[in-house]
Amino acid sequence: MAASNSAREIVLVDCPDDVGLIHRITGVLGAHRLNIESNHEFVDTDARYFFFRAEVMPAAGAAAPESGALAAELVRVLPKAARVRVTRAERRPIVVCATREPHCLGELLLLDAVGDLPGRIVAVVSNHDTLRGLVERFGLPFHHLPHHDPEGRDLPRAAHEEALAGVIDGYAAEYVVLARYMRVLSADFVGRYPDRIVNIHHSFLPAFAGASPYRQAFVRGVKVIGATAHVVTAELDDGPIIAQDVIHVDHTFTPERMAQAGRDVEKLVLAKAVRLVLEERVFLHGRRTVVFG
Amino acid sequence: MAASNSAREIVLVDCPDDVGLIHRITGVLGAHRLNIESNHEFVDTDARYFFFRAEVMPAAGAAAPESGALAAELVRVLPKAARVRVTRAERRPIVVCATREPHCLGELLLLDAVGDLPGRIVAVVSNHDTLRGLVERFGLPFHHLPHHDPEGRDLPRAAHEEALAGVIDGYAAEYVVLARYMRVLSADFVGRYPDRIVNIHHSFLPAFAGASPYRQAFVRGVKVIGATAHVVTAELDDGPIIAQDVIHVDHTFTPERMAQAGRDVEKLVLAKAVRLVLEERVFLHGRRTVVFG
Amino acid sequence: MAASNSAREIVLVDCPDDVGLIHRITGVLGAHRLNIESNHEFVDTDARYFFFRAEVMPAAGAAAPESGALAAELVRVLPKAARVRVTRAERRPIVVCATREPHCLGELLLLDAVGDLPGRIVAVVSNHDTLRGLVERFGLPFHHLPHHDPEGRDLPRAAHEEALAGVIDGYAAEYVVLARYMRVLSADFVGRYPDRIVNIHHSFLPAFAGASPYRQAFVRGVKVIGATAHVVTAELDDGPIIAQDVIHVDHTFTPERMAQAGRDVEKLVLAKAVRLVLEERVFLHGRRTVVFG
Amino acid sequence: MAASNSAREIVLVDCPDDVGLIHRITGVLGAHRLNIESNHEFVDTDARYFFFRAEVMPAAGAAAPESGALAAELVRVLPKAARVRVTRAERRPIVVCATREPHCLGELLLLDAVGDLPGRIVAVVSNHDTLRGLVERFGLPFHHLPHHDPEGRDLPRAAHEEALAGVIDGYAAEYVVLARYMRVLSADFVGRYPDRIVNIHHSFLPAFAGASPYRQAFVRGVKVIGATAHVVTAELDDGPIIAQDVIHVDHTFTPERMAQAGRDVEKLVLAKAVRLVLEERVFLHGRRTVVFG
Repeated sequence: MAASNSAREIVLVDCPDDVGLIHRITGVLGAHRLNIESNHEFVDTDARYFFFRAEVMPAAGAAAPESGALAAELVRVLPKAARVRVTRAERRPIVVCATREPHCLGELLLLDAVGDLPGRIVAVVSNHDTLRGLVERFGLPFHHLPHHDPEGRDLPRAAHEEALAGVIDGYAAEYVVLARYMRVLSADFVGRYPDRIVNIHHSFLPAFAGASPYRQAFVRGVKVIGATAHVVTAELDDGPIIAQDVIHVDHTFTPERMAQAGRDVEKLVLAKAVRLVLEERVFLHGRRTVVFG
Repeated sequence: MAASNSAREIVLVDCPDDVGLIHRITGVLGAHRLNIESNHEFVDTDARYFFFRAEVMPAAGAAAPESGALAAELVRVLPKAARVRVTRAERRPIVVCATREPHCLGELLLLDAVGDLPGRIVAVVSNHDTLRGLVERFGLPFHHLPHHDPEGRDLPRAAHEEALAGVIDGYAAEYVVLARYMRVLSADFVGRYPDRIVNIHHSFLPAFAGASPYRQAFVRGVKVIGATAHVVTAELDDGPIIAQDVIHVDHTFTPERMAQAGRDVEKLVLAKAVRLVLEERVFLHGRRTVVFG
Repeated sequence: MAASNSAREIVLVDCPDDVGLIHRITGVLGAHRLNIESNHEFVDTDARYFFFRAEVMPAAGAAAPESGALAAELVRVLPKAARVRVTRAERRPIVVCATREPHCLGELLLLDAVGDLPGRIVAVVSNHDTLRGLVERFGLPFHHLPHHDPEGRDLPRAAHEEALAGVIDGYAAEYVVLARYMRVLSADFVGRYPDRIVNIHHSFLPAFAGASPYRQAFVRGVKVIGATAHVVTAELDDGPIIAQDVIHVDHTFTPERMAQAGRDVEKLVLAKAVRLVLEERVFLHGRRTVVFG
Repeated sequence: MAASNSAREIVLVDCPDDVGLIHRITGVLGAHRLNIESNHEFVDTDARYFFFRAEVMPAAGAAAPESGALAAELVRVLPKAARVRVTRAERRPIVVCATREPHCLGELLLLDAVGDLPGRIVAVVSNHDTLRGLVERFGLPFHHLPHHDPEGRDLPRAAHEEALAGVIDGYAAEYVVLARYMRVLSADFVGRYPDRIVNIHHSFLPAFAGASPYRQAFVRGVKVIGATAHVVTAELDDGPIIAQDVIHVDHTFTPERMAQAGRDVEKLVLAKAVRLVLEERVFLHGRRTVVFG
C-alpha cells in the first residue's frame, strides 16, 4: 500500500561508515521528492559506523513511494552490511508487563490516557492479579498469566513464556515494556523479540547485589538514587542503555523514602526510554545505543 | 596556505533549507577525498533553515585542499544565501574581560592551564586592577584599562572601548569572553566583533530587576539559582542563549551561600559555553542558537 | 478526642527567635513522655525567626496527650507571637482544581491511586467538562463548575467562587491544589483558605510575559524549561515558593516538545510540593518558605 | 585560651538517642548565654542515634566560655557514649595529595585563592613532580615524595607513608584531601588520621572494575558519569559517602570527552565535600554520613 500524501515516514539506516553515505541516501530521497522534515545522523568514529534517521514527507504534489520499494532502493545504493528500515510514523502498539508495583505501569497508562505517549498500550500482562484494578480503570485489557498452576505448582518457564508470547503476538504488539516485571526472561523468549523489549531497573553508586537494595542504599548512606532503562538482551539487566538519571537523597531519607525516590526516578526514566523507542529514535550497536533525542 | 595532511578542518554551513543540501556538500567533500570524522546537521523545520558542521580529514594519500578554495566550491553548489566557513580545528586565541570577581576568570585560567580548554587565553583585560595577581599567577598578560582617567574623571565610553579593542586586536583574539565584566558595551563595539563575544549572567525564577539579586533571591525564597551564557548582541543580556543550568538551594542558604551557588553555576555554564564556541559548535539564527554539543 | 497510643502527631512551631526555645518545647514534650521520632528546626538568622517541626509518639506505656491541650501547653512556654499547631499525621483530604490540561491532575490521581501521595483526593473541580472521564476512571467525584451560565454569559466571579468554596467546604478539604487551573482567584477567595492553596506554573529563564510561552521559549532558544510550585496569595503566581526544578532542552525541540518538557517538569514539581504540604513540611514566613524536606 | 567575644564556635554532639537531649544541650548553652546562630539536628530513627551541630556566639555582654570547659559540661549532661566536640569556626589547614591529574587539585587551589574555600591549603604532596608548576603558581609549598628511590627501586610503603605523615604533621593539617592521589594508603596510615581523609573517585552505572574506566563507559554506552567523595577508611573507595553527583553524556561523547565530563564532575563533587568537611558539617556513623548541608 502506498502511503497517503499526508503520511510521514521514518527512514532508518545504519552501516559501516563509507564515503558519501548521506549523499547516496539523500539522492534516493530527493529522487522521490521526499522532503526531509527532521534528520539526525552520527558516525561512531571509533567503530567506523554510520547511523541515520530522517522523518520525510512527500513534497507538495509528489506521490508517496511505497515503503518497501523505498527501502529496497536504499539498500541498492548502500554498503552490503547496511540495515535499512522505512516505517510509518504512527502510534505503535505496545504490551506492558508488570508484577505488583504500580508506579511504572501507572505512569505509562497515564501518559497514554492523556495523549503524551507516542504509542498506544494495547494490553497489560502480569504474573499477579494485583494491578488489574489500575489497568481496568484505563479501559485496557489485563491478562493475568500466573507463573504457577491452580494447585500452586510452578509452571515450566517455557509454558509461561509461551502464554506471554501469545498475548504479545495476539495484539500484534511492536514493543514490549517491562515495567517492573519481576520474572527473568529466557534467552529464547528474548530472541523472539530482538531489540523490542525495554526494561527498567534501579541503579546505585556504588552498585549493590542481593536483596533489599533500598535498605542497602540507606545503610550505605548513598546520596543519589538512579535508574537505568535498557534494551533487554540475553544478559538480564545488562543490555544496551537507553536512558539513565538520578535523584538526590540525603541522610534524612528513610529506606521507605529512598524507595519512593527510586520509584519516581524509575518511572521518569522508563517513560523517557519508551517515548524514544516508540519514535524509533534508538539504534543498537553492539553493547551501545545511539539515541537521537 | 594549504593545510598539512595531518590537519583537521571544520566545515560550517547554514542556509535556507533546500532539497539535497547534504548531498551537495558531501559531494564536494568526497571529490576532495575528505573523510568526515564527525558531523552534525539540523533542519529548523519551523524556519526552514539548515545547519551543518563537519570535522574532516584528507583520506590516506589525499592532499588537503586549501580552505578558501574548498569554501568557494561549497558556495558554488549551495543556495545563494548560504554562509560557509572552512576553518582549521585548532586552539583559538581568546581575550577574557573581567572586573573584580575572580570565579569565572579563574575557572577559565585553570582549564587553560591544565589543558581542558579547547582554546588559549592570550590576555586578560579588566577595568580594575584587582585580578592582576590571579592572572599573573598563570603567566598571562594582564591589561588594566580603567574607565576613568588618573584624576578620577570617567573616560568617554568610546575611548575606553577603543583601548579594549586595541588589546583584542593586538592579540588577534578570535573570541572575547566576558567573565563577569561589569561594563555595558556599546552597540558599536559589539558590532566590531559580531557573534564573537560571549557573556555570562545569573538567572532567577522568577526574574529580578535591580540591585542585590542574591539578596532578592533570598528574600523571595527561590529554590534554584541559574546562570545563562549567551552571545552578546546590541541588546545586553538578551543575546542568543548558548547554555543554561541551575543549582538547587533551600531556606538554609544565606544570601552569601546563595551567591556562592551563583558563582558555582556561573563558572560552570560559562566554561561550557566557551568550550562550545571555541570548537565552533554554535550557530546563530535570529534570536536562537543551534548548538552541536 | 485523645489520640490513640498508636497515633503519630506533628508538632509545628514558629516564632521570633529567643534563647532556649527548643529547650522549652522539648521540655513540654518530655513531660508527656512523647518520643521525638524525627524533627527539624531552623533559625532564620536574618529575620531572627525560629521554625520547628517534630513527629512525636507516646513512649511505651505512656498515654497520648490531647492535641489541643498539648498545643496550649506549648503556647504557655513560648513567646507570645508563637504560632503552634499540633496535628495528627494522617492522609489529609484535598480538592484538586483543573481546567483542561490533564498532566498535573493525572499525576496526582495516579499517585493517590497507587499509594504514593501522603493525602487523599476527595474531589476534583473544573470550569470545563473535559477532564471528567479521567477523574471518573479513578472513581472520584468530578464537579463541573462552568464560569458561565447555560446561555453562555459569564457568571459573576463571586458566584463562581462561591460554588467552588461550596465544594471545597462540602468535602472538608484541608488543601486546595490548582493543577493548571486557569482562572484567577480573587483575594477574597484566597483569604478564605490562607496558606492552603498550592499552584503550579511554568518558569523560564529569561521570563516571558504574554501568550504562547512555549512558542516564545522556542523562538528565544532557551536551554532549560522550569516550573515553580507556590502557595497562592493575593498576588497570583507570586506567592512563596515551595519547589522549583528545570528540564534541559535544546535546539532540536519543537515548540510542541518544549511544551511536553514543560508538562513533565510541572507535574514533577507540583507532586513534590503537594507531598511536602500534605506532610506539613512547609512553613511560610513573609515571602519565603521554610521547607523541611 | 578563652575565645574572644567575636569568635564563633561550632558545637558537635552525637550519641544514642535519649529523651531530652536537645533540652540538655541547649540548657548548657543557655547557661553560658550563648546564642545559637544556626543549628541542625537529626535523629536516625533506625539506629536510634542523635546528631547535633550548632554555631554559637556569646550574647552581647556575655563572656565566651573556654571550649574545653564547655565540652566537659556538655559531656556531663549527656549519655556516656556521647561524642562532644567544641571547635572554633575558622579556616582549617589542609594538605592536598595528588598524583598527575591537575583537575581536582587545581579546583581546590583556585577556590582557596579566590576565597571560596572555607579552609586553607597549607601544602600539596605528590608522588610525582608533574604538578609542581601548578602549585607554585599559587605560591604554595609543593612536596615531591616519590614512591621509589633515586635508583628507581620502590620504596617500602611504610617509609613512603612515614614521609607523607611527616609533611601532614609538619603543617599541623587538620584534614587530608586526596585529589586523585593514585596510591593505596595502608590501614595503619588511615588509622593515624581517623575520619580526617577525604577521597574522590568516579562512579558509573553500572559499575566497572579494571582499567580504562572511561573506555569501558564508552563501550557500554552509559548515559551518566558520576563521582563520589567519601571519607577514607581501611576499605579504599568504600568509606562513608559525603557527596555524589552525575553529569549526563550521550553517544556523541568520545572516550576523551567522557573523561572530561568525569573530570568536571569529580572536581565539583570533591569541592563540595571538602567545603562540607571544613565547616564540620559531616558526621560519621557506621558506614553512613549525616551531612548538615
